Amino acid sequence: MAAARILILGGGFGGAFAARRLSALLGERADITLLDRKNYFVFQPLVPEIAGGIVNVLDAVTPLRHMLPRVRVRTGLVRAIDLDARRVQVVQGEMGDLVDLEADHLVIALGQVVDLGRFPGMSEHAFTVKAAADAFALRNHIIDCLERASITDDPDERRGLLTFVVVGAGLSGVEVMGEIQELLRRGLRYYPGIAAGETRLVQVEFQDRILPELSAELADYALGLLRRRGVEFRLGRGVRSAAAGAFELDDGSLIDTRTIVATIGNAPLPLLRDLPLRLERGRVAVTPDLRVEGRADVWCLGDAAHVPLDDGRPAPPTAQAAVQQARLLADNVAAVLDGRPPAPFAFRSRGTLASLGGRRAVARVGRLRLSGFPAWLLWRLAYLAMLPAWITRLRVAIDQVLDLFLPRNIVQTAEPALAATRFQRHRAGDVVVRSGQLGDGVHLVLSGVYEAMAADGGGRVYGPGDHFGDDAIVEHRAHHRPIRARTDAVCFVLARGDYERIAAALVDGAVAPPADSDEARPRL
Amino acid sequence: MAAARILILGGGFGGAFAARRLSALLGERADITLLDRKNYFVFQPLVPEIAGGIVNVLDAVTPLRHMLPRVRVRTGLVRAIDLDARRVQVVQGEMGDLVDLEADHLVIALGQVVDLGRFPGMSEHAFTVKAAADAFALRNHIIDCLERASITDDPDERRGLLTFVVVGAGLSGVEVMGEIQELLRRGLRYYPGIAAGETRLVQVEFQDRILPELSAELADYALGLLRRRGVEFRLGRGVRSAAAGAFELDDGSLIDTRTIVATIGNAPLPLLRDLPLRLERGRVAVTPDLRVEGRADVWCLGDAAHVPLDDGRPAPPTAQAAVQQARLLADNVAAVLDGRPPAPFAFRSRGTLASLGGRRAVARVGRLRLSGFPAWLLWRLAYLAMLPAWITRLRVAIDQVLDLFLPRNIVQTAEPALAATRFQRHRAGDVVVRSGQLGDGVHLVLSGVYEAMAADGGGRVYGPGDHFGDDAIVEHRAHHRPIRARTDAVCFVLARGDYERIAAALVDGAVAPPADSDEARPRL
Repeated sequence: MAAARILILGGGFGGAFAARRLSALLGERADITLLDRKNYFVFQPLVPEIAGGIVNVLDAVTPLRHMLPRVRVRTGLVRAIDLDARRVQVVQGEMGDLVDLEADHLVIALGQVVDLGRFPGMSEHAFTVKAAADAFALRNHIIDCLERASITDDPDERRGLLTFVVVGAGLSGVEVMGEIQELLRRGLRYYPGIAAGETRLVQVEFQDRILPELSAELADYALGLLRRRGVEFRLGRGVRSAAAGAFELDDGSLIDTRTIVATIGNAPLPLLRDLPLRLERGRVAVTPDLRVEGRADVWCLGDAAHVPLDDGRPAPPTAQAAVQQARLLADNVAAVLDGRPPAPFAFRSRGTLASLGGRRAVARVGRLRLSGFPAWLLWRLAYLAMLPAWITRLRVAIDQVLDLFLPRNIVQTAEPALAATRFQRHRAGDVVVRSGQLGDGVHLVLSGVYEAMAADGGGRVYGPGDHFGDDAIVEHRAHHRPIRARTDAVCFVLARGDYERIAAALVDGAVAPPADSDEARPRL
Repeated sequence: MAAARILILGGGFGGAFAARRLSALLGERADITLLDRKNYFVFQPLVPEIAGGIVNVLDAVTPLRHMLPRVRVRTGLVRAIDLDARRVQVVQGEMGDLVDLEADHLVIALGQVVDLGRFPGMSEHAFTVKAAADAFALRNHIIDCLERASITDDPDERRGLLTFVVVGAGLSGVEVMGEIQELLRRGLRYYPGIAAGETRLVQVEFQDRILPELSAELADYALGLLRRRGVEFRLGRGVRSAAAGAFELDDGSLIDTRTIVATIGNAPLPLLRDLPLRLERGRVAVTPDLRVEGRADVWCLGDAAHVPLDDGRPAPPTAQAAVQQARLLADNVAAVLDGRPPAPFAFRSRGTLASLGGRRAVARVGRLRLSGFPAWLLWRLAYLAMLPAWITRLRVAIDQVLDLFLPRNIVQTAEPALAATRFQRHRAGDVVVRSGQLGDGVHLVLSGVYEAMAADGGGRVYGPGDHFGDDAIVEHRAHHRPIRARTDAVCFVLARGDYERIAAALVDGAVAPPADSDEARPRL
């Protein structure tokens, strides 16, 4: 008998653990391929510690090829799925090659995506903390804010740079806030010009309580602790919009900030919405044995799946549930291959843990409720034990132990501001670039209206499709006139260094960028 | 008496060590500012180990604020220097604020830059290994090449992805090659589809020997060792050009490759060339007491300086010499402030070490010459001892010890291909995008001519200022027709994900990018 071809889409908790167990159960009887856009598995509960700078980004993740030695790992992006043929179109490589993969059993473990499109400016300006790389970028950004606040003379800019907003106060939001608070507390000793009282931390939550995953008592403990550490809570408040320098709540109040972290907005993959399958609350409806309704050979698990439990409620979208589903899914695929009947999913909660940073946590394990240092110790040990490879466990443990004794590392490895293209939203009246500034690049207007303000009150106007900021770069000088948004507006910014090189080639009289231009980043 | 204002430009070996000693010598008597574009000190000899993935990028560098607690550290970029007024114009912050800093004593420690402008395509396509971030990017790129080679069906592309070229075979070039070879050797066990013999390593050196810093005997040992490990040497050969998929030697021969590492091209900062001071061989001519010729209060040291020695030759451009100069410079500034005469510089060589990767090295220490494992052990211990902070020492030592026992980490944290804008050079005839590929983005032609090839042999032509690749993105489909360079040509590529968002706003009928688009990277 030919080996069964099993194709697993997604290398998170659901996909990676299913692949590992399938490989153990089936050995040579299966030809297993796992597709993910990255070549590593992220242990999600550690992501806040990456953002805080406790755990090194490379240490916190496990190479999928190391974790799954007998599984074929491919990096690529799913573009289309044909459920009937169990065929997947994949985008791979630098130039976007399209490749078709076919399987006898297809496992959909693609999780959910973050969709902030409902809130103007949020997709342009909010950091997310799903991926390890996002968390690392957030850490670098926070240190960049401290660097910039320490040298600016403008009190408004300083206030914005030292204000940090986290949207959402579930597990992920609270853990990220705890780590940001700790990073600031320990990092600020290196910035003698910034007083501890100058930083402002705001947590916004639509519900009127935090940590709905835990009891009201534990949530109150967490709330009190974070408040004592200076975190402001805006409960019962939602997001209205975000912009380059501000965050707006749904009551219209504004917070000046350069750092917005979004832990909200989980949504189904657009790809899944277009498939001939039923979604329930944004998740793929599956039968209790984890097969997509009406399909014998298409499976789905983890955050992407709506898995019915005995009590009629769906399984929670947690790592814990995904790992339990992965185990069952592998057993069920093996059963089907053997002609045995598959079993239904039953969820056994092993508890919930939330770190608050600074060696404090809250925990519920069975009937036990813990808070403070004991909960934190439990949290550390439980997650260390759950890591998928002993090498990762060792590296993470070393990072965590070193962090107990060493000062926090405030190295900012990336230069985020000048290096890359970006999208920006401005509110009517916002100043985009002041006179005397070199500017960050060429701005291409996507929506709304910007205006360059002349001394006589007149000024030039830029609408969608127009661009500004190029003249200063071409002439290698600072801006003569401030530019501001006349209406709410969105623009695309091509970084100054990139445009310097383009202008040197295409614009008569443009000054060539110096060879040591910060922005020159060679790439293949 | 008011504290003397000392402004140090550059936080490399010269600047950081001078700042540290000045701070120790002068205490409250000096108000010391150090300006660098990054907030950390890079221990240059470890950079190849970052490229190889032995040492974690965050572990290998030391925060300047931690290293220099009593020095005011500022991040920013030098834009102009007024030597007479000892005034420096600095670019800082996201929007390019211009700030003037003034000092009583100005210390220029800006090192050199890499200028590859003489070789067409090299600034577009070569990696450098000066900065820690460059080395980290190179490591991620090499792993990306393995990922892509393991899934492509195209033998030409596979060969290019598995060929690695290092230009220059001095200390830095040889050490980087040693680490790349070791990274491949240990990383390939995770890529069962790639045979060890499929990788090709080529080292190109203009001189007819390697490691001119060491004796011919030690260089021969290194050459033999690297050759036995499969490195091809092209000695007595220089660079002619580079392109998106190829490297061209000065004899016209071509090497298909996606990875070119340049360890050549050191050049003076353009900024220094424009100042009223004398350059000698591209370095600032200084008097033996390390003052810029004709200036009483402007100092220069390290790679930026041409420091005359007793024997008439200049001090070597090494970390060792920079550290010795930093010590003398601090003593001399203190002497001048006290009205004492400054002392001349005398260089005492403490030896030269070159790692070859895989626990082998060559070393010269006084009259002692070592090779192999003992030299490697000496290399490791000597550099550990020289690290500027015991925290860095501890973190690096842990990384190095773990690497002896653990498999090499092959996590690829960045997705380099799709994420960012880039510049590309193509040779006449090179295919830029094939039909059936989604393409990497919109290409704006900067020089030369590209053509879209129609089935009937005709085709559309794109010259400087024209762009192509947008139609496929707007219509969310693969390219219908291949596009190739008709002449040697250079283009700027705006990444597909960025253009999807731009087109959705500005182009009628354009398809909005999916919310989970890989390329959507929020930033502030």
